[in-house]
Amino acid sequence: MFPRQAWYVAATPEEIDGKPLGRRICGEPMVLYRGADGAAVALQDFCPHRGAPLSLGRVVEGKLVCGYHGLVMGCDGKTLSMPGQRVRGFPPIRSYPVIERHGFIWVWPGDPEQASAQRLPPQHWADNPEWTYGGGLYHVKADYRLMIDNLMDLTHETYVHATSIGQPEIDETPCKTTLEGDAVVTSRFMDGIFAPPFWRMALRANGLPDDQPVDRWQICRFTPPSHVMIEVGVALAGHGGYSAPPDKKASSIVVDFITPETETTMWYFWGMARNFRPGDRALTAQIREGQGKIFSEDTEMLERQQANLLRWPGRELLKLNIDAGGVGARRVIDRLIAAEQAVGQHAVTPIATA
Amino acid sequence: MFPRQAWYVAATPEEIDGKPLGRRICGEPMVLYRGADGAAVALQDFCPHRGAPLSLGRVVEGKLVCGYHGLVMGCDGKTLSMPGQRVRGFPPIRSYPVIERHGFIWVWPGDPEQASAQRLPPQHWADNPEWTYGGGLYHVKADYRLMIDNLMDLTHETYVHATSIGQPEIDETPCKTTLEGDAVVTSRFMDGIFAPPFWRMALRANGLPDDQPVDRWQICRFTPPSHVMIEVGVALAGHGGYSAPPDKKASSIVVDFITPETETTMWYFWGMARNFRPGDRALTAQIREGQGKIFSEDTEMLERQQANLLRWPGRELLKLNIDAGGVGARRVIDRLIAAEQAVGQHAVTPIATA
Amino acid sequence: MFPRQAWYVAATPEEIDGKPLGRRICGEPMVLYRGADGAAVALQDFCPHRGAPLSLGRVVEGKLVCGYHGLVMGCDGKTLSMPGQRVRGFPPIRSYPVIERHGFIWVWPGDPEQASAQRLPPQHWADNPEWTYGGGLYHVKADYRLMIDNLMDLTHETYVHATSIGQPEIDETPCKTTLEGDAVVTSRFMDGIFAPPFWRMALRANGLPDDQPVDRWQICRFTPPSHVMIEVGVALAGHGGYSAPPDKKASSIVVDFITPETETTMWYFWGMARNFRPGDRALTAQIREGQGKIFSEDTEMLERQQANLLRWPGRELLKLNIDAGGVGARRVIDRLIAAEQAVGQHAVTPIATA
Repeated sequence: MFPRQAWYVAATPEEIDGKPLGRRICGEPMVLYRGADGAAVALQDFCPHRGAPLSLGRVVEGKLVCGYHGLVMGCDGKTLSMPGQRVRGFPPIRSYPVIERHGFIWVWPGDPEQASAQRLPPQHWADNPEWTYGGGLYHVKADYRLMIDNLMDLTHETYVHATSIGQPEIDETPCKTTLEGDAVVTSRFMDGIFAPPFWRMALRANGLPDDQPVDRWQICRFTPPSHVMIEVGVALAGHGGYSAPPDKKASSIVVDFITPETETTMWYFWGMARNFRPGDRALTAQIREGQGKIFSEDTEMLERQQANLLRWPGRELLKLNIDAGGVGARRVIDRLIAAEQAVGQHAVTPIATA
Repeated sequence: MFPRQAWYVAATPEEIDGKPLGRRICGEPMVLYRGADGAAVALQDFCPHRGAPLSLGRVVEGKLVCGYHGLVMGCDGKTLSMPGQRVRGFPPIRSYPVIERHGFIWVWPGDPEQASAQRLPPQHWADNPEWTYGGGLYHVKADYRLMIDNLMDLTHETYVHATSIGQPEIDETPCKTTLEGDAVVTSRFMDGIFAPPFWRMALRANGLPDDQPVDRWQICRFTPPSHVMIEVGVALAGHGGYSAPPDKKASSIVVDFITPETETTMWYFWGMARNFRPGDRALTAQIREGQGKIFSEDTEMLERQQANLLRWPGRELLKLNIDAGGVGARRVIDRLIAAEQAVGQHAVTPIATA
Repeated sequence: MFPRQAWYVAATPEEIDGKPLGRRICGEPMVLYRGADGAAVALQDFCPHRGAPLSLGRVVEGKLVCGYHGLVMGCDGKTLSMPGQRVRGFPPIRSYPVIERHGFIWVWPGDPEQASAQRLPPQHWADNPEWTYGGGLYHVKADYRLMIDNLMDLTHETYVHATSIGQPEIDETPCKTTLEGDAVVTSRFMDGIFAPPFWRMALRANGLPDDQPVDRWQICRFTPPSHVMIEVGVALAGHGGYSAPPDKKASSIVVDFITPETETTMWYFWGMARNFRPGDRALTAQIREGQGKIFSEDTEMLERQQANLLRWPGRELLKLNIDAGGVGARRVIDRLIAAEQAVGQHAVTPIATA
């Protein structure tokens, strides 16, 4: 179950560089590519001629050409031409609204009428020269909501990521969860502790000592349908923590765009945005490599958790204080899905079978 | 869905050289081997003792011996002997009519009473010393009818095989489809074009210039249940094309015996028969290698097409002029299946459970 | 279908050395580890917090700590603690009776009230310094009863193990099957034969000539739920066979503990106990390697047999004289299962969902 009237990250720009990409988003197989004007396009990945995946084809002068018998598809899902055929009667395939923004290709799997750029989540760090971003993509065989749970309860860092970002103080410090409209925010402030390895590295990268007590913070912010931005950082102890002046702290934003593929699999776009040494590409690569290793530790846990939940489908899970963020996020998601269903199915009926 | 009252290619002779072969044909697991007289045999791949696959056994003096407890099976599906046991009451297993002809082992999955050598499709090129044959076998995860469609509409060559046998003129030249009883023939004649790489090679192999205009032809002939023979060739332009004298042309027959394994998988016996330089084994090997590469390009397309069709089961496909050959072939197949069903199921009931 | 009120081998001690082990037994995912007192423990492999497999966690001072969020589980399935949480209301998970005996970890998947050490099958060779044991573990994709059939009818040795322990005389010599309460015994005595390769090796290892006629015996003993001990050996011919004095024979016990994983898969603990040269570790390793190769030959046969039986579910198998052992064992198993079902399901209801 996932909201459909929403923007999801479908791909990074490099993935559609010169060739079509086949990817399933919210259960729908899509082909993504760039049209003649350079704008990204998303269509149903199904050639109306014989059902071949259009993603096996090629992009020729901004037109998608089926790799089987050469049908030329338009960006609106209507066939443009096919060698030796009149194509006026060809049934259209579904086309999906697409926006390229913040360094990602976004698609809207629901009713195209409701898609608007205003509904894209703002990302203040993107397109800001004082910030830089590095990240990657994982395919994870688990319900996308398990990843939201994971990111909204960082006590798992102590156990899953013991050697990098975990530390016992995370467990010991209570977190606080608040609702701000459809957003859910879980925050934790740990004062006067010693920084774990990742943050000692970040302190050094900021020209700060790595052997002194720090104030550490984690502010996880869920926004629907499934984005989690986490403000994280450390400041030399006693300078105001989260509000400390820039020369006393190292901080960044963990960026998580989580896109359901099916009910039990997801595309996980993870990364880190930072505003220190933004031009240092070697540092960006180093952080991405480290983060990639850390986040791959979650992958096995989530896939095994998913398998266990499928094995015991009736089993109730606990909803502790630390789970309040995930519980709140699921409540928002459930409410959005219920609202979509109340409006009726017609809004999301694929064009081609209408 | 496949006709059962028909001969299908089950194996090549080398595959049953000295050992039994297990292979599923039209949904039925069979064991194939050579009996004492050297004749090929096909039986249900199921030992009546404990259900072990007989294909895991050995052939000892032309008798199939189960590899589990030594039951000795006769070529008619009746147990011959078993150490220390009287075997008279053992239930027989099903045996299938088999013919070895044209360089292949053929089986008849339906009613044995209806099997006759007369119903084998004639192959004039086989057993003719002026011709030679080279080919291979692919396992393809797709409905066998998708391969028939593929072979009856060669416009796909322009896209799937762009670097070997494809060329735009195939698309641009209309094809013509005719019915001849249960046979379906789709033909295309392209005059005064330049030959693509494969045919330039063939022209050279025939001692002909490869840089002059040619007349090219493709005559696809489907016969039930699922054989497609394609006469293909090029002649130096203006010498009569298909009817040109032998010293002005290079031609051959693409041989396709397509055998359903299950509803969504097939055994695809592909090859080429040619009547130029038939004794040149190096050329045979070269052509087989080239054809093997080309035909493997179809494999991915068909498997992905099959996956797409399973995902959108209700979706209608287009039946364009270029699809007339495949549409006609499917109509013949459907008619044969309907006729078999009208006769009733009793004719194909396995002996062992009768 | 398997009896649940029974001890099954779940693991060897090395497998839970310092870390938890996840293993499915009789359909139930379990985590096995050693508690603070060193005793082996088996629990449902499901963290009551968020459903993560506890087997991904760690054992810290004899306590199982979930690898996701640090829940500390007690040996009785009740949560001991969790950072920052009161755990009194946490639902318990199921715990299973465990015994470590005869060199194995045994679990009782059924009603804990009925589990008693008295119901463990005695193994006179275990914990006896005059004997030694070597063995291994195979995962086999087949119903555990197919392995019982296999071991109770050793005529398969002639075919499956032709190069090691098989010989035609096994087929030619009738076997005899008797019932002793819930035990089923199938025995075969072959007098005045020549020993096959494995036994010639064993004769030499006992300081006996390997080129003289021997009397060979095989006494297969099934006890429920699924254990098969096979007394095997050879004695120089004419010295009393099975009853010959120790200096005239080489003998051992083939040990088979067969544990269902699911309805169609099993954990197969195989090995050999012997009372000659018990201190010779090199010989133990050599025998284990040889036995491992021989028993892997059965694995393919059983997995293919299983696949065949699933394909022809309605098909009756033959029950010949040589099958009497397996047939008798299945009758005992069926009787035990029926008795358990008559008592009612409440006895085996998992605690956690009661």
